[in-house]
Amino acid sequence: MANATLISGGHVYAPEDLGVTDILIKDSRIAALGELAGTEAGTVIDATGKLVFPGVIETHAHMLLPLAEAVTQNDFYTGTVSGAFGGVTTLIDFADQTKGNPALQAVESRLKQAESSIVDYGFHCTFTDITPATLDEMQAVVERGISSFKFYTTYKSDGLYVDDGSMLAAFERARELGALVTVHAENDDIIARATASLKAQGKTAPRYFPLSKPEISEQEAITRMILLAEQAGVQLLVRHVTSKSGIEAVAAAQERGLPVYAETTPTYLLLTREVYGSPAEFIVHPPIRGEKDKEALWQAVLDGTVDVIATDDCAFTRAQKRKAENFWQVPGGLPGIETRLPLMYQEGVVKRGLGMEQLVRILSTNPAAVYSLEQKGALRPGMDADIVVYDPEKRWTVTADALHEQTDWSPFAGMQIKGRVDKTLVRGGIVIDGDRCLAAAGNGQYLHRKPGV
Amino acid sequence: MANATLISGGHVYAPEDLGVTDILIKDSRIAALGELAGTEAGTVIDATGKLVFPGVIETHAHMLLPLAEAVTQNDFYTGTVSGAFGGVTTLIDFADQTKGNPALQAVESRLKQAESSIVDYGFHCTFTDITPATLDEMQAVVERGISSFKFYTTYKSDGLYVDDGSMLAAFERARELGALVTVHAENDDIIARATASLKAQGKTAPRYFPLSKPEISEQEAITRMILLAEQAGVQLLVRHVTSKSGIEAVAAAQERGLPVYAETTPTYLLLTREVYGSPAEFIVHPPIRGEKDKEALWQAVLDGTVDVIATDDCAFTRAQKRKAENFWQVPGGLPGIETRLPLMYQEGVVKRGLGMEQLVRILSTNPAAVYSLEQKGALRPGMDADIVVYDPEKRWTVTADALHEQTDWSPFAGMQIKGRVDKTLVRGGIVIDGDRCLAAAGNGQYLHRKPGV
Amino acid sequence: MANATLISGGHVYAPEDLGVTDILIKDSRIAALGELAGTEAGTVIDATGKLVFPGVIETHAHMLLPLAEAVTQNDFYTGTVSGAFGGVTTLIDFADQTKGNPALQAVESRLKQAESSIVDYGFHCTFTDITPATLDEMQAVVERGISSFKFYTTYKSDGLYVDDGSMLAAFERARELGALVTVHAENDDIIARATASLKAQGKTAPRYFPLSKPEISEQEAITRMILLAEQAGVQLLVRHVTSKSGIEAVAAAQERGLPVYAETTPTYLLLTREVYGSPAEFIVHPPIRGEKDKEALWQAVLDGTVDVIATDDCAFTRAQKRKAENFWQVPGGLPGIETRLPLMYQEGVVKRGLGMEQLVRILSTNPAAVYSLEQKGALRPGMDADIVVYDPEKRWTVTADALHEQTDWSPFAGMQIKGRVDKTLVRGGIVIDGDRCLAAAGNGQYLHRKPGV
Amino acid sequence: MANATLISGGHVYAPEDLGVTDILIKDSRIAALGELAGTEAGTVIDATGKLVFPGVIETHAHMLLPLAEAVTQNDFYTGTVSGAFGGVTTLIDFADQTKGNPALQAVESRLKQAESSIVDYGFHCTFTDITPATLDEMQAVVERGISSFKFYTTYKSDGLYVDDGSMLAAFERARELGALVTVHAENDDIIARATASLKAQGKTAPRYFPLSKPEISEQEAITRMILLAEQAGVQLLVRHVTSKSGIEAVAAAQERGLPVYAETTPTYLLLTREVYGSPAEFIVHPPIRGEKDKEALWQAVLDGTVDVIATDDCAFTRAQKRKAENFWQVPGGLPGIETRLPLMYQEGVVKRGLGMEQLVRILSTNPAAVYSLEQKGALRPGMDADIVVYDPEKRWTVTADALHEQTDWSPFAGMQIKGRVDKTLVRGGIVIDGDRCLAAAGNGQYLHRKPGV
Repeated sequence: MANATLISGGHVYAPEDLGVTDILIKDSRIAALGELAGTEAGTVIDATGKLVFPGVIETHAHMLLPLAEAVTQNDFYTGTVSGAFGGVTTLIDFADQTKGNPALQAVESRLKQAESSIVDYGFHCTFTDITPATLDEMQAVVERGISSFKFYTTYKSDGLYVDDGSMLAAFERARELGALVTVHAENDDIIARATASLKAQGKTAPRYFPLSKPEISEQEAITRMILLAEQAGVQLLVRHVTSKSGIEAVAAAQERGLPVYAETTPTYLLLTREVYGSPAEFIVHPPIRGEKDKEALWQAVLDGTVDVIATDDCAFTRAQKRKAENFWQVPGGLPGIETRLPLMYQEGVVKRGLGMEQLVRILSTNPAAVYSLEQKGALRPGMDADIVVYDPEKRWTVTADALHEQTDWSPFAGMQIKGRVDKTLVRGGIVIDGDRCLAAAGNGQYLHRKPGV
Repeated sequence: MANATLISGGHVYAPEDLGVTDILIKDSRIAALGELAGTEAGTVIDATGKLVFPGVIETHAHMLLPLAEAVTQNDFYTGTVSGAFGGVTTLIDFADQTKGNPALQAVESRLKQAESSIVDYGFHCTFTDITPATLDEMQAVVERGISSFKFYTTYKSDGLYVDDGSMLAAFERARELGALVTVHAENDDIIARATASLKAQGKTAPRYFPLSKPEISEQEAITRMILLAEQAGVQLLVRHVTSKSGIEAVAAAQERGLPVYAETTPTYLLLTREVYGSPAEFIVHPPIRGEKDKEALWQAVLDGTVDVIATDDCAFTRAQKRKAENFWQVPGGLPGIETRLPLMYQEGVVKRGLGMEQLVRILSTNPAAVYSLEQKGALRPGMDADIVVYDPEKRWTVTADALHEQTDWSPFAGMQIKGRVDKTLVRGGIVIDGDRCLAAAGNGQYLHRKPGV
Repeated sequence: MANATLISGGHVYAPEDLGVTDILIKDSRIAALGELAGTEAGTVIDATGKLVFPGVIETHAHMLLPLAEAVTQNDFYTGTVSGAFGGVTTLIDFADQTKGNPALQAVESRLKQAESSIVDYGFHCTFTDITPATLDEMQAVVERGISSFKFYTTYKSDGLYVDDGSMLAAFERARELGALVTVHAENDDIIARATASLKAQGKTAPRYFPLSKPEISEQEAITRMILLAEQAGVQLLVRHVTSKSGIEAVAAAQERGLPVYAETTPTYLLLTREVYGSPAEFIVHPPIRGEKDKEALWQAVLDGTVDVIATDDCAFTRAQKRKAENFWQVPGGLPGIETRLPLMYQEGVVKRGLGMEQLVRILSTNPAAVYSLEQKGALRPGMDADIVVYDPEKRWTVTADALHEQTDWSPFAGMQIKGRVDKTLVRGGIVIDGDRCLAAAGNGQYLHRKPGV
Repeated sequence: MANATLISGGHVYAPEDLGVTDILIKDSRIAALGELAGTEAGTVIDATGKLVFPGVIETHAHMLLPLAEAVTQNDFYTGTVSGAFGGVTTLIDFADQTKGNPALQAVESRLKQAESSIVDYGFHCTFTDITPATLDEMQAVVERGISSFKFYTTYKSDGLYVDDGSMLAAFERARELGALVTVHAENDDIIARATASLKAQGKTAPRYFPLSKPEISEQEAITRMILLAEQAGVQLLVRHVTSKSGIEAVAAAQERGLPVYAETTPTYLLLTREVYGSPAEFIVHPPIRGEKDKEALWQAVLDGTVDVIATDDCAFTRAQKRKAENFWQVPGGLPGIETRLPLMYQEGVVKRGLGMEQLVRILSTNPAAVYSLEQKGALRPGMDADIVVYDPEKRWTVTADALHEQTDWSPFAGMQIKGRVDKTLVRGGIVIDGDRCLAAAGNGQYLHRKPGV
């Protein structure tokens, strides 16, 4: 079996802890797990002393995103190379319907861009304009293989804002289609008033940014989205929860038995608002909060309230971030697709007692389930062989130079980490091997996702 | 003591049940309660067989309100005469700040109109335009004796809508002033979308009105207002709660220990949406709901979740209500200031086991406390002698003719009632005696209310 | 009106705050409240600068209680004199049915003893032996005017213990009779095991006493009694709650809407377990707890979870308490009937912001309601004129000498207090006037209590 | 690989749904899972069309149990043969410490009896006598491989009862040892009183049995055991929960985050109290309840509150059950070890939408985790090859004749079932193949269980 690959002797998390065992890969899928020592295979990966688990599924990242006169510097090739160095084997990015333009056109345009991806990819579709015509388009989008939508409750001046009446209509259509809705939930009015007040006081420098978006703006919008989703009977994922009050709103909904999921990112788990000094690099929406919020989010990761840890990756350069004088002109978003896995291993598993099974669920199994990726998220016979071989002993320090994103800085620079990706396999093919990327542009395949039930 | 009045032999609810006892009134105030049989008094009211309790405090009624090309037909004289026949001894109406016009000017104008009132009166002040200037005006308004505000989350097209950011700013100012905030809570966007959808389907007749304002629009807005009030640390009263989900949102806040109060009206306790046939009379905002909502509201009256039963009195004539062809053009609001007490006695005390003490609290003691009327709401020595002498045995049937409002119909016509006001006293003076009104226009005094703590 | 008494110019709490006003008493009852300045009266009490409120109702005290080879030193005369100096106007003590002896015989015997009381009095009946015969006796006891029962879940070796099956049967009978059940709730088995363990270790001195009765023994027994009361559908009062976990169990029941009441005593509100040094004086059951328990009880007083503050008064002398060598031989119980009101005024009203209305409710209005004393607990026309005139400015220090109990020590000795009883009236007659007792033995009347609904 | 076994083409639940795949067994353990079609193996089992999942772990059954002058008819050979026909691959039975007899002696005696078992086996140890000596024995028992204990809160007259003080002491010792405690929770006093009352009324026939053990006796005892376990900090499993109020008590504990597990049995999920006619067969402790209880238990199975479905198997014959005239003399317990799996498949999976993964967890994965069986409960490389091959299409009707228990009746006779065990493997060896048992007595091995953390 020349075309077979054997990963032998690693400690496997499927996500279940299988102990030290072997994995046989054939025809891009997992063929068998177990004691397979003598099995003939063209490629043998000795994973002794390594951790072996399903590839990370990135469900919130922005390649080539134009924002505030800038554009994120990663295209689908460089972004997925960077991601793969961080264990990413699947990327779900966004296709954005804009006012007056057909959603499917945006989808096809993004599909074209994504052809250079080295990992498998799919899209969420953002709708900003809810009309009878766009509600019909939602069905066409689902039929094109996109079974999750995104809506914004804010950015009115940027044309992204969806009002509550339209939101409810869109949620109801999504429920009819069996699709998932996801939201960026911040109260636009509260932010607008706070921003106007800061302007009136001349507090326009980047360091005033967090004052423009108080926790209540997130708590209120999350609470409202949950009520509308409950009314519509649709499944809801709340993007990038940042605050104690916000995650408590999600937890309360989960306790009532509602299908409400929470996403957060390493940004909110590792940083606090002290980063908002004079340089503008750290501006991201919603803003980074305080210590009590950070701790509440970790608690929610440990107790299962947080379902998904994504990155909201936006690879702006330092120059792009620093160009504007006023905080509202700074393009929002931070790079992070490559650092997420080692940061979560270091801060979660090593430091806070997060179980490896739970880490694998949050990075891979849960997003596969929530976003209907049937072939991904677990190491079981027949599943796609998307696999990370992880060296738990390797020590390194985060620096922008050590990473592969198309930017010159990292919010996590200086952090010391134990553990690093040794190999990343996509459908059985080794795409990352130590410091080298072995995959060519276009290695990834489009994931046509069917809606759930 | 020629200027004294003795009410003898009635069953007194102070609101506490004092049993059969006497009340002595001197200099417009209650001088003593007890066994006062031989006390010399210029006026003696034999209340044998009657119930005696504090006058009803009307905290939600609209005299001379211009709305949708109509105006409510009661002025402060006719409206308070009508109210006094229904046991009302205090009226708190509204002064409405409008865009670009000073709030105090609106207050002074309303004070002028109110001079003809036969019962004591005060005002809430509605703000629609939240600017640094109007936030300053809030203090002037409080200093003028108005310690409660009203805000709308809807009626954007009528210029009443206050956005969430402005609402939060106004709530914070109210908290600084020690004032109470009250809200008309419906989600404007949801209503706008539902209305547009009905228009698009040609469903413009009045009978389609309730479809334009689904329960979720109330539930969501109440939930949001509670969150903002909690954030601001201000006391909140939710006006005219109509739905099961709405009152549950209030109850949940009360259970968390928040100072959140609920008002409802007889309209929502006695009618269901079946009233919405082709004539437009019953259009009121929010709309009348279903049986389950009605029962949930009664439960909330019985268990104390509802703090205040007001009327939202709007005396439009049948012709005024029927003039428009489209439901959104019909002036909203129903008459009710005169019928509230007998209806609540009949349906609450006689039929549903509501205790007299609880009825008195909801109609008088609670509104006095919530709205800082220190001299009102209880029969205790030193308090204003605002008193109802009620005949619990008198049987009658509601008809528009039998009432004194300046309109030609009643939403409650045909209802059979046991119990009717026999006498109403304002500051010791008899204003209603059986079928006669003994008070002249101008009998009422302005109530300068101080903010609470 | 020579036989009338007028209390003029005091600040009256009825329990409602009536401000400064007058009270007229005729024929032992309150005739009127209000502005009664010129009213003719044989006796006029000038209460200017004083607080005037309903007399304290003592619902947990033990006169002439034989216990562990001792007997409490107060008889019904000396005990009620002492109580009246502390504002007590009603005493409900206990009549104890014992194995093989008719309950009514115990009742009649106690009635005889109580004839010397100077305040009105009644009884609870303790049942220790639940048989078909004693279940029948419960009805006879109720017909004799005793509408509340007491049961013990512990003291098995003293013959007081009632097992759960019998408890449930007794609760069900009480519910049929409309009576209230009250319990001393501690887990006998846990205490027995802990005691045996202490004995085995030679830890028999009084200072080891609190180790014999851990908080769990109270928490568990309270939880169990609530379950049984809920099953039987009977109203339950939990005696002398001492612990945080215990009061939380009661609060949880109240939140579920169950008619469960909590009693505590000044002992548990003012002392902590540090009092358990080598002398045995402070032994009381359940034991005094820690700081966190004390604070939880105060919180429960302030938020209304605690309904009644009684004393569990047991006037043992220092010699009686110190006689035994082993903690289980010490007669349990502390004196306190005279100090409760000033201690609660000082520590509650002066120090912790407890409202006077709430204090009056806990000491008088609530016990009157819970124990069906229709003529007591509020200052309203027609009610018994049981009244305390309290001097809020008088400063003094607790010493055994300054008190009137038949014992030579006080657990509260040394505490400095602002506020003291100036006069106590029982049915209009002054029984305490400053330092003098004006009432003769036998001034009190038996209170025949009818069961509630 | 002549000693290898390949199970090919079955639908595998590991418990995770692995779809159709193969399992390779070597040296009694699972060697590999996956696409293993061509693998050389001495034995090949074609599982096409079959379900393949981990063997059932029976954690509550009584072989050779003497009770009320009878003894259960299954010994460890016949009982485990019967069990294996029902998919059982592991049995944990009981060794009972009795007053004055060393626990280890009971353990060794039971180990001797169990040598004939055809499936792997272990024991819980029941303690009835909690003394310093037996608390020490608990450690010796754990060292002998028994890491779970059982205690009774009832059966005082049979010498099984453990009082609360002793229970708490035993729980604390178990926590120190890292062991699990399990309880038979019924309130002995309530049962004793109810039984005495029935006797007094002459209601002694078996049909009166359920009246002797009302739901409150279970609800109260479960609540109490949870409180004591929380106090001790020990893990608790509540045996055979039967009632809505009982399972709600467990659910409340789980919601508070306590490590409290619930067991129930098919008896309580399939039967209601209508079975209690004149014959005595159905007497089991606690008694079978009503429809609402049955439905509440199913809900708890579906939502995960129930962790384990055991059987409490007691193979008494009809004659043994019918011998006594009085209900309290009937030996309690029902046969069921063989019918559990097909009944749960039929009633849970086929009829009520219970997922196969959840069924496997409740019957195998959860008991393995709760009872520390590290090599059991999941199909993963390296685990013991304890496997059921299940034919989901086979239709049959329960009759005593069709079963292999040493009794002449079944409580479930007449039930029609779709699905039956096709093969049962214990450590890779086929013990059941269709209608035949292929294993000899003594095939089972003793499971030395280590305590958890």
